[in-house]
Amino acid sequence: MTTSPAYAAVDWGTSSFRLWLIDTEGQVLEESRSSEGMTTAAKAGFSTILESHLSAFSAPDDLPVIICGMAGARQGWVEAGYVDVPAALPAVLTAAAVVPDAKRDIRILPGIAQRGTAPDVMRGEETQLLGARDGSVIGEQLFCMPGTHSKWVRLSGETVTGFASFMTGELFDVISKNSILQHAVKDAGDFDGSHPVFLAAIKSAFDHPARATNLVFTVRSGQLLDGLDATGAAARLSGTLIGAEIAGGMADGWQRKELDAPIKLIASGRLQDLYEAAFDALNLPFNTIDADEAVRRGLSQAAKTVFGGNT
Amino acid sequence: MTTSPAYAAVDWGTSSFRLWLIDTEGQVLEESRSSEGMTTAAKAGFSTILESHLSAFSAPDDLPVIICGMAGARQGWVEAGYVDVPAALPAVLTAAAVVPDAKRDIRILPGIAQRGTAPDVMRGEETQLLGARDGSVIGEQLFCMPGTHSKWVRLSGETVTGFASFMTGELFDVISKNSILQHAVKDAGDFDGSHPVFLAAIKSAFDHPARATNLVFTVRSGQLLDGLDATGAAARLSGTLIGAEIAGGMADGWQRKELDAPIKLIASGRLQDLYEAAFDALNLPFNTIDADEAVRRGLSQAAKTVFGGNT
Repeated sequence: MTTSPAYAAVDWGTSSFRLWLIDTEGQVLEESRSSEGMTTAAKAGFSTILESHLSAFSAPDDLPVIICGMAGARQGWVEAGYVDVPAALPAVLTAAAVVPDAKRDIRILPGIAQRGTAPDVMRGEETQLLGARDGSVIGEQLFCMPGTHSKWVRLSGETVTGFASFMTGELFDVISKNSILQHAVKDAGDFDGSHPVFLAAIKSAFDHPARATNLVFTVRSGQLLDGLDATGAAARLSGTLIGAEIAGGMADGWQRKELDAPIKLIASGRLQDLYEAAFDALNLPFNTIDADEAVRRGLSQAAKTVFGGNT
Repeated sequence: MTTSPAYAAVDWGTSSFRLWLIDTEGQVLEESRSSEGMTTAAKAGFSTILESHLSAFSAPDDLPVIICGMAGARQGWVEAGYVDVPAALPAVLTAAAVVPDAKRDIRILPGIAQRGTAPDVMRGEETQLLGARDGSVIGEQLFCMPGTHSKWVRLSGETVTGFASFMTGELFDVISKNSILQHAVKDAGDFDGSHPVFLAAIKSAFDHPARATNLVFTVRSGQLLDGLDATGAAARLSGTLIGAEIAGGMADGWQRKELDAPIKLIASGRLQDLYEAAFDALNLPFNTIDADEAVRRGLSQAAKTVFGGNT
């Protein structure tokens, strides 16, 4: 390290752990990633995992740590509660929970909850939103945050006015592994957003979301009748689930025509490619914001607010 | 047995096996049920399982056997092929496959395939349709056949003109067991079609099918935020999947307004109760036909055609 870290920032999800050491200028000095998410940490110990990553970088014993994500869930490290919708994003910064009896100052950011007839929760995405928001946009913005439980979030100025989670990523996983479709997708190769079967499925599911669980079944019948190969089968399953999600994310009170800006896609890597291809195929205007950068920027803003001037 | 059996009729599904011994008058003399479906039989041997059920009833060695269902699939006992849509139901009767090298005459009925842009397959349901059809109806009828892979079938006279499979039952199973929702539905008690959470979910998913995978997620968020109990969680998951299926079954070219008769629900037991409650809640006219009776009547018709006068 050329300069000293001012704090550590951690994005602690259900199945992933990411840590950055950041200096007072906001520069990333070190980065580490692992699969030690909440599920692993609940058994191995949150403190043990965090400290092992910090000591690998010889981080000082008094380095403060700011955390977002599932570490703040009820079944996580320390429950960090929720800020309720309508939720002003800056309120997230000031509601962090303190990890008690730790040798260093460790804070966990709260999630956001939507109570009422469409109950919903997020943990981690609120921090991405903090880092991704464009303060210059005054009106309504619609954010799409793909993942295990994709979030579609409506932001009015700096206030989250509503959101919806879609089980897209998890459904792809459990259907691929545990349903009869496991035979159809077995040994599937990689595919990207240009795969014609993926794009056709995006359009079908977006146009006919009510047929989604039927379109999913055509992964199997397509294999039986049309010789659909394993990679095509995986592409059809993925395209169907993503197409239905986009239809749902924009349904009802969420129509694009009410929005004042293109959809903001917060994504990186493979999901960025698939969702960009999907939006293009559906002729939906969008801008992409890198998800890793967004969460890091959000954590940095939180650190400045929580730990004050030294960070 | 008071009279001698003329044949055995078998409905051999993916996960269930049902056998009836039937006399020349069409009366059921014996019945046996087990969970030795195709999956079990592929390992234990189809012949072994069939003969063990027959010998338990001291059935004669030359008793012929008519079979429908997954025993005729590629991964089943003997592949019985498909009759293609548009498929006249009587054509199913004459396309049975013969099991070679068996000590008795064993025939397996073919399925029905829909080729083209909406590939789909059924095995077993064609035999239920044979037993459930009402020859007096000339126009279009819509059949709903709930199950692991629910079928919605359009019949014009005696011809299947199109159908769609929905993965409702299997999705309920894999989501309940393998997704994050397993925690919400753990130790759920029984619920029936009158459960208010089930009925509310039916209406939500039917009205907003594009939000189905979001509504599924509210099983979890409802537990976190509203204290939804495990039975309510299972009822919400079930109602969401069934409501979305009904929306999809009636979508696009399948609207009830084009039909000349109420929806025909072919079901029995628990699924009958849930789907009847769903149709009532949605104000959709329907008649119920018992699924067990339908498949037995269909197998009896097949036996008469295949084995001739003695049956």
